[in-house]
Parts: sequence; C-alpha cells; structure tokens
Amino acid sequence: MSFEGVDGAGKTTQVERLATFWRARGREVVVTREPGGTPLGAEIRHMLLHGDEPVAARTEALLFAADRAQHVAETIRPALDRGAIVITDRYLDSSLAYQAGGRELTAGEIRELSMWATGGLLPERTYLLDIDPAAAHARLTHAEDRIESAGDAFQRRTRRAFLDLAEREPERFLVVDAALPADDIARTICEDSVHLVG
Amino acid sequence: MSFEGVDGAGKTTQVERLATFWRARGREVVVTREPGGTPLGAEIRHMLLHGDEPVAARTEALLFAADRAQHVAETIRPALDRGAIVITDRYLDSSLAYQAGGRELTAGEIRELSMWATGGLLPERTYLLDIDPAAAHARLTHAEDRIESAGDAFQRRTRRAFLDLAEREPERFLVVDAALPADDIARTICEDSVHLVG
Repeated sequence: MSFEGVDGAGKTTQVERLATFWRARGREVVVTREPGGTPLGAEIRHMLLHGDEPVAARTEALLFAADRAQHVAETIRPALDRGAIVITDRYLDSSLAYQAGGRELTAGEIRELSMWATGGLLPERTYLLDIDPAAAHARLTHAEDRIESAGDAFQRRTRRAFLDLAEREPERFLVVDAALPADDIARTICEDSVHLVG
Repeated sequence: MSFEGVDGAGKTTQVERLATFWRARGREVVVTREPGGTPLGAEIRHMLLHGDEPVAARTEALLFAADRAQHVAETIRPALDRGAIVITDRYLDSSLAYQAGGRELTAGEIRELSMWATGGLLPERTYLLDIDPAAAHARLTHAEDRIESAGDAFQRRTRRAFLDLAEREPERFLVVDAALPADDIARTICEDSVHLVG
C-alpha cells in the first residue's frame, strides 16, 4: 500500500495509524518511504533535495527511479515475499505528479522509467490524502526543501496531477479528504484495508 | 568523440594526446569523462564504486544513466553548442559493455535507458582501445575499485562486448590495437580525427 499527497497532507500520521492497526492484529508491517527508503536512497535523496548544483530534468527523473529500484529490490520485495504488509510514504505516483505534472517531462516517460525500475510492481491500494495546498502548507513547520519551496502554482498543479492519476486508476486509488479530522481519516483507511489484507 | 576500452587500455594518455593535438591547432577542446564528469556525477560515481551497500542491477543502470544525463546537459551539449571539440573518457558504450555485457540486464534495455538520458546524443566517433585484459591489468597500479576487482572472466567478457559493439556500428567506431606504442596509437587517432573535425 502507498500513501500519496502534497507535503503537509498528513501522510506520516496516517501511515503510522494504519501500521499500528495491523500490528495490533498480529501482522508484520514494514513502514518505508520514498525518496530515501534505503541507505543508498538516502544519499540520492540528499543529492536531490539539498544539492547546490542545478539538476537536469532527466537526471532528476533517473535519480528518483534509481532510488525506487533500490527500494523495491532491497526493502519492498523481500518484505512482500515473507508475507509482511508494506506501507510506503510516497511511491511512483509522486514521480508522476511532481516530475510529469510540474516539470518538462511527459507522464508517459516517467511512468515507463518507474515501471522499468520496479520491474512493474504497483501497490494493491494507494491512499491519496487530498487537501488544498494552502491548508497543507500551513501545517508544515520544518524548513522548506527545494521542492516544497517551488511555489503555490506548482503545488496546485501537483494536487491536480494526483487527482488525475486517481481518476485514471479508480480500482487502485482511494481518495480521502485530508481536511477531515485525523481519526475519521484513519477509520476510513483502516476499514478499507481490511478488504485488501487476507 | 569518445574513448572506450577496459581499464588499463591507455585511454587517459590518448585522450590527452588528442586534446593537445587540437589545442595546438587553435581549437577549444573540452576533455571530460564518465562516470563523474560533473560535480553531481562525481557524487554518483563515488556511491557506485565505493559504497558498502549491495547495489541492485537496475539501480546501478539508472545511476549511470543519471550521471550521463547530467553530463550531457551540463557539460557536453553546451560545449558542442559553442563549437568546442568534446572528448569524453567513456560514454554510453561503457554502460553497454560493463552492465549488459557482464551483468543481468539486456543490452537493449541499457541502450534505451542511455538514449533517453542523453536525448539521443551519440559521438561522431568512438575510439575503442582494444587490449588483452591481462596486459591491461598489468599496467594498472592504483588501488582496485569494485568493478576493476570483478575478475578476469568479467574483463574478458567486457572486451568481447566492446568489440561486438564496434562490429555493429563500424561507421562510428575505430578499433585501435592498444598494445602498440602510444605514439603510433596517437598518430592513427589524430589523423582519423582530422577527417571528422571541420
């Protein structure tokens, strides 16, 4: 399962709530994230978010794909193989929304790259925490990184891109109104997940 | 123009000889290399060659492609646009020979990735310095990195892969016997380059 949405939508909170729900029911849960879900990925994430050098669009796309390839090979596949529930904070839809929605490459190119990187692995369910970017921004208290500081128009375009992705794959996505109280959101997501997990 | 061949084939020497030849004729020459031709690429190179963590095959391919994308966008394209002669020590054929020739991915996948990374940019000429890996190995004096230490069978397979690439694109490649004296090799390459450079 993956969680998607703009920064400040409440992904971290909801990831933890869902993990707690399943651990209380005796399941192994692996909580992970992109970018930076592996030690190598953390190095890549640092290069992408905090480097001084301008990063070319194709370079950025390839680095996110490299992070994802390592994440799948080192963390996600082994966990799924032993029967664990994997919950990832961002996955390939973030690349599609942020890189294809907001920058110069097409969604088709980014998707093809990601699908090659992961060997075609998609989540059973993707929870999209949807919120007005202005409301999400007000929740963020930590220092802005490069992508967060890219401006309101970019954030609105990204939100729209996430919603478009959800419309295109209604079986995979569940869109949740992230302006609701956290308890209500957690209840909706946990109940939904019961239908997925055997 | 690019130079290819196994480590120890004498690429560094011949790159410098060709650069000197053209600088003496008043041309701007940009000498560069992969991996690590840009500051970002140098970070990627360090991760690839000296990391502690096992790097998945797809991750490795994507990181080399990211390095190449940045190299083309930041160094090679701007130099070509202002009329400079670009000489690169390794380019996409190294990915094809080392990753596809020696590891688990197909040459077609690696080539497609590289062509996407570079926006389809190929060298006008590729000089392949061909040598028996055992002879090349004897020339190397510095500490071995991860790829150099991968063993003789791997080096022989890589040499074969380079020769196969040259056979498939005879107009682009010039194969030079790297066991000849350096002066003879330099003369052959410089004379050939006169026909390419306007």
